[in-house]
Amino acid sequence: MHAITISEPGGPEALVWDEVPDPVAGEGEVLVEVVATAVNRADIMQRQGFYDPPPGASRYPGLECSGRITEVGPGVSGWSVGDEVCALLAGGGYAQKVAVPAGQLLPVPQGVDLRHAAALPEVVCTVWSNVFMVAHLRPAETLLVHGGSSGIGTMAIQLGKAVGAKVAVTAGTKEKLDYCAELGADVLINYREQDFVAEIAQATGGSGADVILDNMGAKYLDRNVQALAVNGRLAIIGLQGGIKAELNIAALLGKRAAISATSLRARPLGEKAAIVAAVREHVWPLIASGQVRPVVDRELSMSEAAAAHQVVEDSGHIGKVLLVAP
Amino acid sequence: MHAITISEPGGPEALVWDEVPDPVAGEGEVLVEVVATAVNRADIMQRQGFYDPPPGASRYPGLECSGRITEVGPGVSGWSVGDEVCALLAGGGYAQKVAVPAGQLLPVPQGVDLRHAAALPEVVCTVWSNVFMVAHLRPAETLLVHGGSSGIGTMAIQLGKAVGAKVAVTAGTKEKLDYCAELGADVLINYREQDFVAEIAQATGGSGADVILDNMGAKYLDRNVQALAVNGRLAIIGLQGGIKAELNIAALLGKRAAISATSLRARPLGEKAAIVAAVREHVWPLIASGQVRPVVDRELSMSEAAAAHQVVEDSGHIGKVLLVAP
Repeated sequence: MHAITISEPGGPEALVWDEVPDPVAGEGEVLVEVVATAVNRADIMQRQGFYDPPPGASRYPGLECSGRITEVGPGVSGWSVGDEVCALLAGGGYAQKVAVPAGQLLPVPQGVDLRHAAALPEVVCTVWSNVFMVAHLRPAETLLVHGGSSGIGTMAIQLGKAVGAKVAVTAGTKEKLDYCAELGADVLINYREQDFVAEIAQATGGSGADVILDNMGAKYLDRNVQALAVNGRLAIIGLQGGIKAELNIAALLGKRAAISATSLRARPLGEKAAIVAAVREHVWPLIASGQVRPVVDRELSMSEAAAAHQVVEDSGHIGKVLLVAP
Repeated sequence: MHAITISEPGGPEALVWDEVPDPVAGEGEVLVEVVATAVNRADIMQRQGFYDPPPGASRYPGLECSGRITEVGPGVSGWSVGDEVCALLAGGGYAQKVAVPAGQLLPVPQGVDLRHAAALPEVVCTVWSNVFMVAHLRPAETLLVHGGSSGIGTMAIQLGKAVGAKVAVTAGTKEKLDYCAELGADVLINYREQDFVAEIAQATGGSGADVILDNMGAKYLDRNVQALAVNGRLAIIGLQGGIKAELNIAALLGKRAAISATSLRARPLGEKAAIVAAVREHVWPLIASGQVRPVVDRELSMSEAAAAHQVVEDSGHIGKVLLVAP
């Protein structure tokens, strides 16, 4: 088969569409013929040499895919050859075939195009596990989503609204904020022009955000704590703004607040399967009913992965950038 | 009645045993004739002018007491005049009488002396709400308790062991560590001579502490994150080592770990009542069975509050220092 390989860490040109050996479905795995994958920031970090795949994972990038099952390995039940699926991956989505642990498979939701289903696993699993399983967002609470127009952001807005929360977002352009509003965001904050702490205070009558989903890490840590409500929960899922920052513990304690930081990729199979099962139970019906949908910015050929990475690095997109297998 | 008043913030001498008006049992409250109260570090901060009582709370110090109900206010059911109780307070325990919201009352556990019951509410509610309700300590996990010989520490050791956890403690002297061992602590770390990060790593085969109960705040933040296991939870309940410190968010994210910071005093009545109810359900039977007990260092007269504060400030105690009403 062909896959995107990274011979040496570097810029987008490091991504090469190359012939490689086929993967094998091991115990508890299925083989999926990939129809599409999607670009995640973690792929860019992997390309740059900052985020090696965990032990045992495919060396090729790609943390999610959609496609058809072509082989069912030993010890797998409930899935058959020919099933149309999407999947959470520890790597290897930028390829024509990928071996997937059965616990990370999801059926393609009713009404969703098979290609577009590749836009779902990472964002749905990330948002559900952080905003709901860890931070326990409840109806009528306020959710602040940083990077509201990103793949994660567009899903967080929709799921926040689906449970009856008030959703505030930050983004860097009016076009992106307008799109967030179309998805249901109630409070729109242009981080280039506005102070999100002041805007959240104003939007909540001074009480602050109950849950914050943050991709910036260090750069926003202090302001995120300032923006939290009493009993607030800050869920950090990215470090785009650096890794170390001063934490005002007294401010955190005064609010009886909590900070969590998670990633999906390094989790053991059992934890991933639990998240995928929760997503199938709680989010898939919302997608099947049309209340929540994948947001796809554009579709490129998998062999154009370099161009797709450039789009995401330039933040020139809204939602997910897909890579379609040739 | 008499109560300890603080005319001006200052040293222990600022505590004056003075005649003051009697409190009144309001709606949903009972009046308790105080038999004993206990010294908490928060009382010392209040005396020093750094921790004002929340709005509506008594101006006198004292976050817990034991005694007898002398009056039942309107809207209170389930409690009668003459009942022997202990109670979580927002203030006012250093006095002969105190008005208590009914949701913060607990019966004196079977087998516990009425005076000694004053040693229970703060430590049991703090440990239960943080280690169990927030950090969800589970059997076979490792709990690291900083300040293992403090009132909080001695209760955390016993409750950790009661649920089947492995308990590690830090303390500053051999005598204190020996006492922690008597209470069941499995791993004893002298923080003056040993690095708790290295000791926890060694005691857990490199995996780290699943839950850390921390009273130091800034001074230990970075090392606490280092000492956490994957999926670890750091529960900060004190700031004795300062309020601001650098947080390594990448380390937190790599462990999918969480930090919470809480206090009891400022919580609304409903949250306090929920904690008290959980304590009555889960901890009171352990005390009644003798598996868990209050640890009392010494008992002084309430009029000797200054001397009692000095003992706690000098960390010359193990467990709780009680103040008995004259």
